[in-house]
Amino acid sequence: MNIAHGSTATVLALALTTANTAAAQGRKHEHEHEPDKAPLTLQTQGSFFVGGETVHTAAVSGMPSGLVGGTNEDDISVNQMYVQFQVPEGSDDHVPVVMLHGCCLSGKTYETTPDGRMGWGEHFVRKGYPVYIPDQVSRGRSGFDATMLNEVRLGTQAATALPNIFTVGHKVAWELFRFGPAFPAPFADEQFPVQAADEFGKQVIPDLNGLLPTPNPTWTNLAALAVRLKGATLMGHSESGFFPEQAAFIDPTGIRGMISIEGFCSTTASPEPALTPQQLATLVRIPTLVIFGDHLSDVPAFSTLWQAAFAGCQHFVQQVNDARGDATMLHLPDAGVFGNSHMLMQDKNNLRVADLILSWVGEHVEHSRTKHKHGHRNDN
Amino acid sequence: MNIAHGSTATVLALALTTANTAAAQGRKHEHEHEPDKAPLTLQTQGSFFVGGETVHTAAVSGMPSGLVGGTNEDDISVNQMYVQFQVPEGSDDHVPVVMLHGCCLSGKTYETTPDGRMGWGEHFVRKGYPVYIPDQVSRGRSGFDATMLNEVRLGTQAATALPNIFTVGHKVAWELFRFGPAFPAPFADEQFPVQAADEFGKQVIPDLNGLLPTPNPTWTNLAALAVRLKGATLMGHSESGFFPEQAAFIDPTGIRGMISIEGFCSTTASPEPALTPQQLATLVRIPTLVIFGDHLSDVPAFSTLWQAAFAGCQHFVQQVNDARGDATMLHLPDAGVFGNSHMLMQDKNNLRVADLILSWVGEHVEHSRTKHKHGHRNDN
Repeated sequence: MNIAHGSTATVLALALTTANTAAAQGRKHEHEHEPDKAPLTLQTQGSFFVGGETVHTAAVSGMPSGLVGGTNEDDISVNQMYVQFQVPEGSDDHVPVVMLHGCCLSGKTYETTPDGRMGWGEHFVRKGYPVYIPDQVSRGRSGFDATMLNEVRLGTQAATALPNIFTVGHKVAWELFRFGPAFPAPFADEQFPVQAADEFGKQVIPDLNGLLPTPNPTWTNLAALAVRLKGATLMGHSESGFFPEQAAFIDPTGIRGMISIEGFCSTTASPEPALTPQQLATLVRIPTLVIFGDHLSDVPAFSTLWQAAFAGCQHFVQQVNDARGDATMLHLPDAGVFGNSHMLMQDKNNLRVADLILSWVGEHVEHSRTKHKHGHRNDN
Repeated sequence: MNIAHGSTATVLALALTTANTAAAQGRKHEHEHEPDKAPLTLQTQGSFFVGGETVHTAAVSGMPSGLVGGTNEDDISVNQMYVQFQVPEGSDDHVPVVMLHGCCLSGKTYETTPDGRMGWGEHFVRKGYPVYIPDQVSRGRSGFDATMLNEVRLGTQAATALPNIFTVGHKVAWELFRFGPAFPAPFADEQFPVQAADEFGKQVIPDLNGLLPTPNPTWTNLAALAVRLKGATLMGHSESGFFPEQAAFIDPTGIRGMISIEGFCSTTASPEPALTPQQLATLVRIPTLVIFGDHLSDVPAFSTLWQAAFAGCQHFVQQVNDARGDATMLHLPDAGVFGNSHMLMQDKNNLRVADLILSWVGEHVEHSRTKHKHGHRNDN
């Protein structure tokens, strides 16, 4: 199945795939939402940057005279990736997990849910895992290179040189992310906390990936992060669903596991896998989990898209396993878990889904790690 | 002293004032840097948004057909402010502290320092304070309204309608933030970890405040956050140095204390205070701390600017105290603390400076709070 020539699929692919071209509560309140939350003890926490280069720019501002000092030129840092992390006490036996967000979102994806419940970041920490949450390069606290935008303001570049900036509006988010069949109606068994859809809308931030060079620095930085952590499981979602694999194609050294959630399992803006033999040889050595939620065929505007994404990932899993790799497709309804949206890390049953992932990590990533530790690993 | 007509000061004011116009170390590494760091136990943590409105846009993307579905129109959320928080165990006796960053930066300002040491956010939590760290509206995880940028790409707005986007380059940061007298030389007693200046450069992200309406939604959201927290001390830095006061002018209800670090103590792009009697009446009821670091006169390119900012804030403190308010000027060299830069929350002695602030909070903010609790407060 290949619907890449269909207009909706083609356009959406820009948002969902790895293509570079595209791309509440206060202190008292969350006590009310999480009355049983036990204290959390951290061994350490913090934030840092991975990657980044220094470049010279002639437009640190949109004014010819610059911000200060009469010049608009200076060196700036670009393509760095911001990463926040928490390491729980007694985590030494667990492989760190890196959780990367999708299109038009930030690391907020994995924090407190729109209706004030615990996100996956803290849940994984409470389960003993070091957790690393980046903002994609060109988004959030990673920043972006504003040179081109200022040059258009200054008249030294044409307006058509501006990047195509994406924002997911409320109606599109509702339908594309499968909160219900058509905005603003939810599915009867919908797991997304639709009463907090307004709070979800506030998480949406403009996607400037159209500014990025090739390969996407986020891929390179993910690979470098895994090396720096001396091994990590990389998780991607939606636009970044295949970023763990893209990182592995650049440098698989540190990547112990890959979790691809609700994206296209492809290196192109097509839902169909297009893997080279060399790429497949890399993939078969890293345990991989692919996850999809419910209602893939139940939103008229996007069912062709989601069916294609799902079919493409099924094909991908099959390819990896046919080559004697370890790939698992977790289609939640097939596991008896119903009603999940595209934002399944924020759904009302998000911790149940998280625990399915943790089980897979334990069996596929850490089991092989134990083998490695004990010297029984013979796949090198 | 008023240098607002000087070109450098005028332009810089856009970055430093409230005007609307205007270690990178992995898991193992930061253990090396902070070998003695004790485990941290949190009562709770998370993130949420304050404020925000729903608006209709005709440019969710820079393509006429939109992101999906053949339309470029949808409702989007704008002007919301992202806030991350941590509440330590046993914090019930302490007033929460809100730490807001300055121009071209994000909440990262208060996290791990560029050379991998503990930032003020965690330090205050370890001292028992609930800490709330926002990203300014139009920056970082708060996002921005990209409509205007997409409209310029689409040709429905002129390029001159683009916001003036600011990025602080490496040379300007070095001199403006007083890492040394001239890039790349440091002061002999410099407290900023200049060997990690490259890592600091990665914290810089484009400042899109030029897109914001008046009043700046960050001011409104800060005031609302303080109410929601049932009382908070608001801290601002540089561009946001006077944001606590701007928030108080909108609604002082929740604001228990104000800390203004290295900015202009003014409602305009001038270093001179221009307070109305009504504004002064608000200010005298809230304890206020103003902080400046060292070398204000020692960077040739910017000494006029910093001297003006300092003199303006001295005038401000005097005005408040003359009106029987409680304002304190903490000029660090006068307190025997030397070599501090503009980024004093990241300086090598950052925890020493933090403890001076905590002493002030205890004496001026929480002392009055205790009075309030015991019913002795008679200033209503």
